[in-house]
Amino acid sequence: MRNVAVVGAGVFPFGRHHDLLYVEMGRDAVNDAIKDTGIDRKEIQSCYVGTTGGVGVGHEIVNETGIIGIPITRVENACVSGSNAFRMAWMDVALGISDISLVIGIEKMKDSSMGEAAGGTGRFKLEMKAMAKNISMASFGLMGPPGYFALAAHRHMAEFGTTKEDLASVTVKSRTNANNNPKAEYQNIMTVDEVLNDKMINPPLTRSQCCPKTDGAAAVIIMSEKLAKKYSDTPVWVKGSAMTSSIIMDLLSNLSAMPNIKSSRMAYDMAKVEAKDFYKNGFVEVHDCFSISEILHSEDFGWAKKGEGPKILNEGITQKDGDLPINPSGGLLSCGHPLGATGVRQIAEVLFQMRKDKEVAKRQVPDGNLNLALTHTMGQPMLGFTSCVHVFSRNL
Amino acid sequence: MRNVAVVGAGVFPFGRHHDLLYVEMGRDAVNDAIKDTGIDRKEIQSCYVGTTGGVGVGHEIVNETGIIGIPITRVENACVSGSNAFRMAWMDVALGISDISLVIGIEKMKDSSMGEAAGGTGRFKLEMKAMAKNISMASFGLMGPPGYFALAAHRHMAEFGTTKEDLASVTVKSRTNANNNPKAEYQNIMTVDEVLNDKMINPPLTRSQCCPKTDGAAAVIIMSEKLAKKYSDTPVWVKGSAMTSSIIMDLLSNLSAMPNIKSSRMAYDMAKVEAKDFYKNGFVEVHDCFSISEILHSEDFGWAKKGEGPKILNEGITQKDGDLPINPSGGLLSCGHPLGATGVRQIAEVLFQMRKDKEVAKRQVPDGNLNLALTHTMGQPMLGFTSCVHVFSRNL
Repeated sequence: MRNVAVVGAGVFPFGRHHDLLYVEMGRDAVNDAIKDTGIDRKEIQSCYVGTTGGVGVGHEIVNETGIIGIPITRVENACVSGSNAFRMAWMDVALGISDISLVIGIEKMKDSSMGEAAGGTGRFKLEMKAMAKNISMASFGLMGPPGYFALAAHRHMAEFGTTKEDLASVTVKSRTNANNNPKAEYQNIMTVDEVLNDKMINPPLTRSQCCPKTDGAAAVIIMSEKLAKKYSDTPVWVKGSAMTSSIIMDLLSNLSAMPNIKSSRMAYDMAKVEAKDFYKNGFVEVHDCFSISEILHSEDFGWAKKGEGPKILNEGITQKDGDLPINPSGGLLSCGHPLGATGVRQIAEVLFQMRKDKEVAKRQVPDGNLNLALTHTMGQPMLGFTSCVHVFSRNL
Repeated sequence: MRNVAVVGAGVFPFGRHHDLLYVEMGRDAVNDAIKDTGIDRKEIQSCYVGTTGGVGVGHEIVNETGIIGIPITRVENACVSGSNAFRMAWMDVALGISDISLVIGIEKMKDSSMGEAAGGTGRFKLEMKAMAKNISMASFGLMGPPGYFALAAHRHMAEFGTTKEDLASVTVKSRTNANNNPKAEYQNIMTVDEVLNDKMINPPLTRSQCCPKTDGAAAVIIMSEKLAKKYSDTPVWVKGSAMTSSIIMDLLSNLSAMPNIKSSRMAYDMAKVEAKDFYKNGFVEVHDCFSISEILHSEDFGWAKKGEGPKILNEGITQKDGDLPINPSGGLLSCGHPLGATGVRQIAEVLFQMRKDKEVAKRQVPDGNLNLALTHTMGQPMLGFTSCVHVFSRNL
């Protein structure tokens, strides 16, 4: 298995882009990534595109950016699409098929084209018959992710004494970080009271505790070790990659998502690290689709004991200058969550942070935390629940 | 790079399955593949699903067949979806991430759910703006694949003296083979006159010279060398895999599709074979989406000189008992073309033929042709034109 590094990235501002086509957002992200990498675009040998709604956009973007004649693979895996596309590109380069691969994550969620992941195709209605076979699935289908995670939040409050203020504090941290991220959809600082007094979506989760539907695109370029060392003094190495799935109800029965536990441990093993190694050494971008999600993840990933997710949050450990910064970018809660784009944006954040780029100067995590990083997305493609984790390091 | 073999396969009958869900067709194909392979389903470590319309079906099928907790990646690449999914699974096992991987190809085309590849999502309308920027693309969009290939047929007739009877003979051969394939949508033998007198779709192509829209599913199971030797006395080795793309107009300007030429030569090189090695030694399943397509491919792949595709057809070389059988299964023209399923069905055919299974006894190619095989799909995801080729051998 060859070593693989992330060498360049570009992020198109997350937000409302009703007037833009997929190809226009993607083209800009790709051109930024190529410029950042310092390669000739003709050196790119393959392209992987994570998107739920962007049918064929990979080909459009590749054509519009003048990268002709390469294999283009679209990967769709609901909220995990971007990370899954990155994982495929990593396999490609690690195996030695491509030396340089381009990963694009892209989604338009603000208009009807968000489509398929949320059931925009005719097939969805047909398959409701299949869902109805399983009552728990059908009820999930009716309430949707906010309802599902709201139930998890209630359970966490009942079992561990977690308060609604604890939950709101996740959003407060998120917005504080995003206030320094010009590419986040919501950059406004919020107080706990403001979060709690926001529009109620699904008790106890208010609007600002639910990630917004967003338009956005991101691109990263990865390379074999030999080329990474040629093109960069600061490559970011892929040390671990893992993905797994389960049936969906794990989270509610255990307040713990088996795919998150399993994929994180598999990625840790591959990277030869443990959960504690991230403390005072690394930072992470996790899938905070709801405020409760980040708390659950911090426990599932082994950074807090069960029930103590709120504790490490309240102690400031997960702040951007804490011992283990979580979501210095602002995460999904503030950046927004254009499904396919999210996983790729997280990896771009890791690169920018580890290189200490001017772009992230105001949200820069401490120098001591730049040795190790982790990205994580999770999603529910139909009846399945999937988690994808990558571990990165500045050191080979 | 580890050696990878195809060890088991299952094909759900191609045809009209209005009453069946994706998950029902896919489940049966997967269960057949597992039974054929002789493994415990819990040994499957990853799953790749090629489908344009089957959002989330991979997770449904995996759950319904009792394979829990594995990574499931959906790949969408229009008509190349199934082959592309297979290619990802091959990378996965070749790299050493999974030892056993399941590939599913599946599509429902008969009802509205065929969806996205044909522009079923809202996004398509929006992106027509992008297509309109390029007039040649817009005109392609208006006429669709039958019109596009009809133009190519006219060019071939004008340049090389190809006749409408030559074109019809492709369908005659296809139906003759499919007459022995109980899983093909159209199994009726046809004469040249019947093909020419069929309903005109786009001159010179009549209905039976255009592949039908079909429902269907197929599954194959691949393994590392060590496990393949444990589970099978007749593994079929993956010797070459290549995929590439171009802008779409190559075919009309050159009567030759650059991605087909390029991906076939890349796959030949990887497999250390040449075009001539298939004669009296191998057989192939190519993407005969239209009668003219098979003729063009036989030239692009180097089996016939330019303009002499009809010659090798008329000489009987490409018949199932000829020197180089093309599409012994009946191909897309008779099996039908459920987009994601096609590429996987082709690979199942290679396995069945190379093992001399009872299932293919009546369409069995000669013993001397069982040493080498090739599968090929091509597609037009939006503005891009993609070709994917795999080469197989009974010998490691």
